[in-house]
Amino acid sequence: MTTPGSGQLVTAGVIGAGRMGSFHAETLARRLPGTRLAAVADPAPGAAHQLADRLGCPRAFTDPGQLLADPAVDAVVIVTPARTHAGLVEAAARAGKAIYCEKPMALSLADADRAIDAACQAGVPLQVGFNRRYDAGFRAARDQIAAGAIGTPQLLRSLTRDPKLADPARIPPWTIFTETLIHDFDALRFLNPGAEPAEVFALADALIRPDFRDRGLLDTAVVTIRFDNGALATAEASFQAVYGYDVRGEVLGPGGMLTLGDLRATHLTSYGPHGVTAGCVSYDQDLFRDAYIAELADFTDCVRTGRPPAVTGQDARAALSIARAAIRSVTTGSPVRIDELKDQ
Amino acid sequence: MTTPGSGQLVTAGVIGAGRMGSFHAETLARRLPGTRLAAVADPAPGAAHQLADRLGCPRAFTDPGQLLADPAVDAVVIVTPARTHAGLVEAAARAGKAIYCEKPMALSLADADRAIDAACQAGVPLQVGFNRRYDAGFRAARDQIAAGAIGTPQLLRSLTRDPKLADPARIPPWTIFTETLIHDFDALRFLNPGAEPAEVFALADALIRPDFRDRGLLDTAVVTIRFDNGALATAEASFQAVYGYDVRGEVLGPGGMLTLGDLRATHLTSYGPHGVTAGCVSYDQDLFRDAYIAELADFTDCVRTGRPPAVTGQDARAALSIARAAIRSVTTGSPVRIDELKDQ
Amino acid sequence: MTTPGSGQLVTAGVIGAGRMGSFHAETLARRLPGTRLAAVADPAPGAAHQLADRLGCPRAFTDPGQLLADPAVDAVVIVTPARTHAGLVEAAARAGKAIYCEKPMALSLADADRAIDAACQAGVPLQVGFNRRYDAGFRAARDQIAAGAIGTPQLLRSLTRDPKLADPARIPPWTIFTETLIHDFDALRFLNPGAEPAEVFALADALIRPDFRDRGLLDTAVVTIRFDNGALATAEASFQAVYGYDVRGEVLGPGGMLTLGDLRATHLTSYGPHGVTAGCVSYDQDLFRDAYIAELADFTDCVRTGRPPAVTGQDARAALSIARAAIRSVTTGSPVRIDELKDQ
Amino acid sequence: MTTPGSGQLVTAGVIGAGRMGSFHAETLARRLPGTRLAAVADPAPGAAHQLADRLGCPRAFTDPGQLLADPAVDAVVIVTPARTHAGLVEAAARAGKAIYCEKPMALSLADADRAIDAACQAGVPLQVGFNRRYDAGFRAARDQIAAGAIGTPQLLRSLTRDPKLADPARIPPWTIFTETLIHDFDALRFLNPGAEPAEVFALADALIRPDFRDRGLLDTAVVTIRFDNGALATAEASFQAVYGYDVRGEVLGPGGMLTLGDLRATHLTSYGPHGVTAGCVSYDQDLFRDAYIAELADFTDCVRTGRPPAVTGQDARAALSIARAAIRSVTTGSPVRIDELKDQ
Repeated sequence: MTTPGSGQLVTAGVIGAGRMGSFHAETLARRLPGTRLAAVADPAPGAAHQLADRLGCPRAFTDPGQLLADPAVDAVVIVTPARTHAGLVEAAARAGKAIYCEKPMALSLADADRAIDAACQAGVPLQVGFNRRYDAGFRAARDQIAAGAIGTPQLLRSLTRDPKLADPARIPPWTIFTETLIHDFDALRFLNPGAEPAEVFALADALIRPDFRDRGLLDTAVVTIRFDNGALATAEASFQAVYGYDVRGEVLGPGGMLTLGDLRATHLTSYGPHGVTAGCVSYDQDLFRDAYIAELADFTDCVRTGRPPAVTGQDARAALSIARAAIRSVTTGSPVRIDELKDQ
Repeated sequence: MTTPGSGQLVTAGVIGAGRMGSFHAETLARRLPGTRLAAVADPAPGAAHQLADRLGCPRAFTDPGQLLADPAVDAVVIVTPARTHAGLVEAAARAGKAIYCEKPMALSLADADRAIDAACQAGVPLQVGFNRRYDAGFRAARDQIAAGAIGTPQLLRSLTRDPKLADPARIPPWTIFTETLIHDFDALRFLNPGAEPAEVFALADALIRPDFRDRGLLDTAVVTIRFDNGALATAEASFQAVYGYDVRGEVLGPGGMLTLGDLRATHLTSYGPHGVTAGCVSYDQDLFRDAYIAELADFTDCVRTGRPPAVTGQDARAALSIARAAIRSVTTGSPVRIDELKDQ
Repeated sequence: MTTPGSGQLVTAGVIGAGRMGSFHAETLARRLPGTRLAAVADPAPGAAHQLADRLGCPRAFTDPGQLLADPAVDAVVIVTPARTHAGLVEAAARAGKAIYCEKPMALSLADADRAIDAACQAGVPLQVGFNRRYDAGFRAARDQIAAGAIGTPQLLRSLTRDPKLADPARIPPWTIFTETLIHDFDALRFLNPGAEPAEVFALADALIRPDFRDRGLLDTAVVTIRFDNGALATAEASFQAVYGYDVRGEVLGPGGMLTLGDLRATHLTSYGPHGVTAGCVSYDQDLFRDAYIAELADFTDCVRTGRPPAVTGQDARAALSIARAAIRSVTTGSPVRIDELKDQ
Repeated sequence: MTTPGSGQLVTAGVIGAGRMGSFHAETLARRLPGTRLAAVADPAPGAAHQLADRLGCPRAFTDPGQLLADPAVDAVVIVTPARTHAGLVEAAARAGKAIYCEKPMALSLADADRAIDAACQAGVPLQVGFNRRYDAGFRAARDQIAAGAIGTPQLLRSLTRDPKLADPARIPPWTIFTETLIHDFDALRFLNPGAEPAEVFALADALIRPDFRDRGLLDTAVVTIRFDNGALATAEASFQAVYGYDVRGEVLGPGGMLTLGDLRATHLTSYGPHGVTAGCVSYDQDLFRDAYIAELADFTDCVRTGRPPAVTGQDARAALSIARAAIRSVTTGSPVRIDELKDQ
């Protein structure tokens, strides 16, 4: 990759034209000065063209390989189904592109290692889509913790609840760990600076759709993590919270507690005969809109300036290691030490 | 009055066996160690007896004069209709009783002056029922302000909203000023220590029951007050807030702002498909239960120890002077200076 | 003005390269697809050029007249000192430009009328910068009220407090009414749909900097307004709230209450030995960032589609009439009826 | 025991004159009409006499056996160190007294069974001090859940944090489970009506005072519980939260979420240069004052009316079984099934 000079235009290609891919594409096309959306790729017939047209993007492919081969593309943003991430990171690295990859970067530690190695070998930046790190509240919490405001964390909590479980038949096994809780695993590492997970115990079940339990659905989970600095953490997820999209965090240390998260959609509150009411956020793109934009702004700035990304392949691997340990814990019914994990 | 020694029993008589009188009677009978409910009086047939029976109180009268003449009564608690307060204070003072009188102590400044004089002449303590002064939040705010935490107040707000306007036909004219906002007028003085009102402008209307406007109902009011230390204040009242009983305050000074008030009935919050909900307080005796008890505890302690009350007849007069100015302002359509008021 | 077709590019010129002008210029240059920043004008030497350079804008002028004469400019955004607004609106209208003017559009009713007439004569859209109307919370409140959720408003409140009074010597007289409270006057109209102000009483003083009272500074104000639908409203302003930028609203109707405003900068809350703490917003461009962008998006959409603006010159005039009445009320010490106002 | 008729006086004896014993004694002496404090016992020299004197209680003993033998005592309230509870319950039962016992009723399941049997044999009521069941918020949550408002719970959380860890040397091993988290274990059962714990995994450590780890201190703990209705729960405790006494709960079900807990001491909020601040509760007797009184009111009512208590010895045993499983889980490093527990 040739690093574009500071001030130079970054040309980006988006692989994956779904809901999140469209948002990222629009960010690259319109919301980031100094960045241009050069290409979109999606195997679904017409998807890439439709998105490219809407955003005035000159090129659209059904084959991601074509996008990776396009010399007009400096950087790729991978927003495809999770199982394809690691392979695309490798391919993009070989093609010499700067890489932004949505979470999870990989589903196995072996894949994660290969992806990291590929980027390293190619000397290209590799950033992973842990958007909470770019949320103003989470960032301020991390800064305060890193500055010692509450001392070394003792008890942490992170949770994610989606507003609606649409079609349980389409959810791959272990999704709750590899795609949902992966955010919380990263958030817990982010809020416990310098510490790494040591031991994991997980409980999970199909409580929202028990009729899918036999098909392997896990829609509700609680994970307990002991970190190597002693901190005890819980991560909690549900695929359906009828009140809306719910992301919260909490950190207790010897100097105090920080809490994170806001369920309210606006600052409007209603008081009626049945009490106080406020509307909740129902959509991740409402809650994290600014963070989604900020992470791509940071990524394109890395591409432009050559500085390394703030959220790396190693961060992706570390969060994945908790997910893999949680999966093994559910399978065995026992706690799992991170250092027991092979490259599964 | 003979001051009972410290540790001695205070015997109290309650005049008025309505909702609030019953609460005060129960407090005196059961909630205050060292205090005994010795008598109840109420002209309504059976009311005093029924209350006395329920509380194990030995004497019940239909004539308040009999209670005032009872040598077994050290202190009287006046919880009758407002128009009778000043006269009963005078009579109680002449009978040598320590006096607690519900707000408003009087409806005219002349009456207030006579009541104050009577208590002064008799050398009996006279305390007035501005219960907010005994609420933990209001008290903490006053203490912080008095300690200079936010500097000299610049902007203040106090509001009272009742949950339900039951029967507009039974509300005497000007009630919103003399019985409802009188609390806010006192609260504003309490939260602006040492300052006195200088000028008052009031707007009021029948917006809840416009069909009673012609009969003189005022159910909604806003009063603006300029204090002699420069502070500008608003007091606001409504006879019907469907969400519950609403009492709040706010004080801005050069060093910051304090806000007061909580509409929530408990710490339980519900999150459902329609958002976040919390139940509201619907009853003043829920919101101010502790304060109602604390003010009688303080009063009986004054009786027991001989120290002067914390909320005096002069406080009652000062709040009334704002109410009278507001009434004149509504009548004339112009702002009214407090020093223009005669003893009306 | 030739209306650009739907989908066509809108080219905008910004007059005034100060803090807010720079923000609007950046919005036009970068944040709004389909809009281009074509020119900047500012009489301060170098200001326009510097801003134009930073944003890649092709033209910069020191004379606003040159910008107005530029045929490459479809629409002008006026962000100059308040006293120049009305004149620039007239000139822009004569030049056939679509007009967005920051509040207050005029300082006298006569000026407001001339500006409105000019835009009307020229057949150009005229939108005024009441940004709160574009804030998600205020808009949702208005929508609920217009839909009857709380019935006809009875009591309203709107307040604005700036975080810091920098240099009192540079503040023109009556600024608190014409530049600060003008937002609240508009917000109260917005939240009381269809109603118009009937009577105004105002108190104002120099409480933050009493040393500037003799020079005419008014830094603290409370305004009471009676609307023609009976609603009673207060608007309140302070030039210095040390805790941050504070904008709130409240509306009570027969069906309930709505409250608006959030002082918290993020969803991070700290709990330490001294209690619960959350950081406050210190800057209007933080609090209303999305609204500032949304109002220009709406304006450029009006330019593009030919539909009339949502916030009009008549809205500006109506808010100004309250400000003028408040000024007269402070001057005379009496309440002022809106229909008494001439074109002062 | 002879059940006093409805309306009859209940005479109670308190065993244990410490902080909580004194509070309960004062409640029995002064806050509950129809109840009389007849005796106090405490082995510490002078403690019982001092408390009895202060409350006008006629009898004081150093030997609890004397109190139990006193025919003037209908009911005993056991507020002694935890290790003595079960034995005193047995003795009180044999003496035919109605029994209120502070939590934990026993430290081993065998002791719990003996205590329950003794009360059962003697035909005396046995109530246990899970005060959260008498808190208005917890009770309202339970009522809503029992009424189906959020459906069958899926994810629950309960936490307790004490404000200050005073002297780690005086804390018996496993205290965090048997004395602190026992409240949360009961609260989780209370908020998950009809369900029983099935499996427990616990992590615990000395993070506040790591210098006492070698002496067996556990000051921080996280417990994960799977209930037999599928619900997954976490209970979390810390012996030191510098911001105050912190008790919270959360329940997610298919119909929504309920949250419980309030850290704020009053409704006063301060806004200063460093943000928004509210004082926190620092003392359990502030947070649960009303609940502490309500549980004794309910207990004495059971004594008076003969109806069975709402919080039983079986409830105590069920919470203890979670504590015992958590202790074994910490010891073995593995999850523990409740049905594996013998009567340890």
